[in-house]
Amino acid sequence: MTSVQAKPQQSAPASPLDELAEMRAGDMEAVNEMILTHMRSDVALIPQLAGYLIAAGGKRIRPLMTLAATALFDGDMTRAHKLAAAVEFIHTATLLHDDVVDDSNTRRGKDSANIVFGNEASVLVGDFLFSRAFQLMVADGSLETLKVLSDASAIIAEGEVLQLSTQNNLDTTLEDYLDVISGKTAALFAAACEVGPIIADQTPQTRTAIRAYGQALGMAFQIVDDVLDYNAAQEKLGKTIGDDFREGKMTAPVLFALQKANAEEKEFWARTIGARDQKDGDLENALTLIQKHDALEKSLNLARKYGQDARAALAAAPDNETKSTLTALIDFTIERGY
Amino acid sequence: MTSVQAKPQQSAPASPLDELAEMRAGDMEAVNEMILTHMRSDVALIPQLAGYLIAAGGKRIRPLMTLAATALFDGDMTRAHKLAAAVEFIHTATLLHDDVVDDSNTRRGKDSANIVFGNEASVLVGDFLFSRAFQLMVADGSLETLKVLSDASAIIAEGEVLQLSTQNNLDTTLEDYLDVISGKTAALFAAACEVGPIIADQTPQTRTAIRAYGQALGMAFQIVDDVLDYNAAQEKLGKTIGDDFREGKMTAPVLFALQKANAEEKEFWARTIGARDQKDGDLENALTLIQKHDALEKSLNLARKYGQDARAALAAAPDNETKSTLTALIDFTIERGY
Repeated sequence: MTSVQAKPQQSAPASPLDELAEMRAGDMEAVNEMILTHMRSDVALIPQLAGYLIAAGGKRIRPLMTLAATALFDGDMTRAHKLAAAVEFIHTATLLHDDVVDDSNTRRGKDSANIVFGNEASVLVGDFLFSRAFQLMVADGSLETLKVLSDASAIIAEGEVLQLSTQNNLDTTLEDYLDVISGKTAALFAAACEVGPIIADQTPQTRTAIRAYGQALGMAFQIVDDVLDYNAAQEKLGKTIGDDFREGKMTAPVLFALQKANAEEKEFWARTIGARDQKDGDLENALTLIQKHDALEKSLNLARKYGQDARAALAAAPDNETKSTLTALIDFTIERGY
Repeated sequence: MTSVQAKPQQSAPASPLDELAEMRAGDMEAVNEMILTHMRSDVALIPQLAGYLIAAGGKRIRPLMTLAATALFDGDMTRAHKLAAAVEFIHTATLLHDDVVDDSNTRRGKDSANIVFGNEASVLVGDFLFSRAFQLMVADGSLETLKVLSDASAIIAEGEVLQLSTQNNLDTTLEDYLDVISGKTAALFAAACEVGPIIADQTPQTRTAIRAYGQALGMAFQIVDDVLDYNAAQEKLGKTIGDDFREGKMTAPVLFALQKANAEEKEFWARTIGARDQKDGDLENALTLIQKHDALEKSLNLARKYGQDARAALAAAPDNETKSTLTALIDFTIERGY
């Protein structure tokens, strides 16, 4: 299993995310151990499939948020390990179900689990990991964190269903889009962060502030993700672009391009995204229209607004190294969109 | 929405299940109300899809178990309402995901939700209901019931994955089959029952006994369900039979017929269940072989053994009307197989 913590090195870490992972290297190791232990099952297919996805890596940004938000207030890291693992299980369950719902072929640069193990197993192992997340929370024994994470789980599912309703729907508004990403992404970032001050027994005000940091960071994170899917520079780095376009997802870049579209352009979007009738050259044309209307820049400006919210929310935290890194993470989250 | 409680009537109720529903009519109404309230969402597709399945009825046997097991010890019925609704949400989520996994077309005599709303929505609304179940448990506020039901959820998912591995696999043993149904069915019956004595603050011994009742009843219930799928008399009542055969499920009737199969019969099962290469007349031939080897009778004898376990477990309960009805329910569960 790949582990996210950076290897001991002399040079400065590459990003605030790596820096956080390095600061919490021992904790991340404990979280990884917790993940491995709790995905065990006598039913061999379960650790096989779960391990396939979890070994594929990923940035482990959500459990890292739980660790950082606990360390920020000098909270009990042993509790944070359990809850960070629960957060990662919820996220992994969501990914497994997402790939079935989107009929995806790849995830983290490999064939996605539904391709390798089938949709059936992906649905059921997702359910298993979701249950395991709740078992971990029960073992932690706090009804407060159980509430925060069960609320988040319901909101994630709502966001995903809403996304289904907006997909291929040209009438989707920017507000709808923000509702979708608030549910499908920001809710878990917010909950992952809120767990920290709960563990560290902070005031409700502090909890709300750290939750708001996670929520705003999650919004920025998803908007930038959606920008990257139309960023030709990414293609040069060997990453796939255009997945959202092919799936007819109504994301920020398309919404901003649509706002300024002329009649002919509207027809193009109606055919490619609305009717999902796509042919060679359509993605290139979409990229041209997105550039013409400054839609990536407008999307990044929106992300930047959430970045400001995240920064403001962090004022509630004590000044320490973790806070500096969480602050740097905001800019990093946004700048990776360029 | 259809409600399971029997309409007020002078004549005796048709079955111990109806009798239980009648005894707890007010409570079942409260549970139905709780279900309706908690499947609400601003995302319209969620109550539409959830309501479609829940309105289709079903026997509500699992939440009824929670109500009965609480009433058995004169426990707090208000808590039982919440937890019974949580049990039904877990069950409904499982049904939604099952129908996607099995690629089913019908459920409770109507087009299944995946046919009407699509697999994508069925997966995601299942996730939503599952989350709602945990929100209800958190609102109840007992870590003990949260543990019982989160453990059950993980076991259910394990059972479903195991079923996937045994499907179309002629090497499946009776033990494998019992593991599958213990996970996919009996675990939730057991948990639904155990919640009652927890609410009523009974001793660990009593909890274990009532849980054992639910476990054994669930085993008998599923074996009989699997018998009914090969029971030609059911067809005369207008019910579909042969679903398990078409899906290549290794259930008790097939396992008992296989045990006594000659070479030619083994070839037949290998083709139809193992390779899932089926043609007209195959189901009829399967029924003939199952009859030839007394496989339905053998299956029902197995169910009867679990019935005895259930009866023995109930000895721990105080003698009252609920206990009499729960006892009668054991025989009813088995006799419906004829």
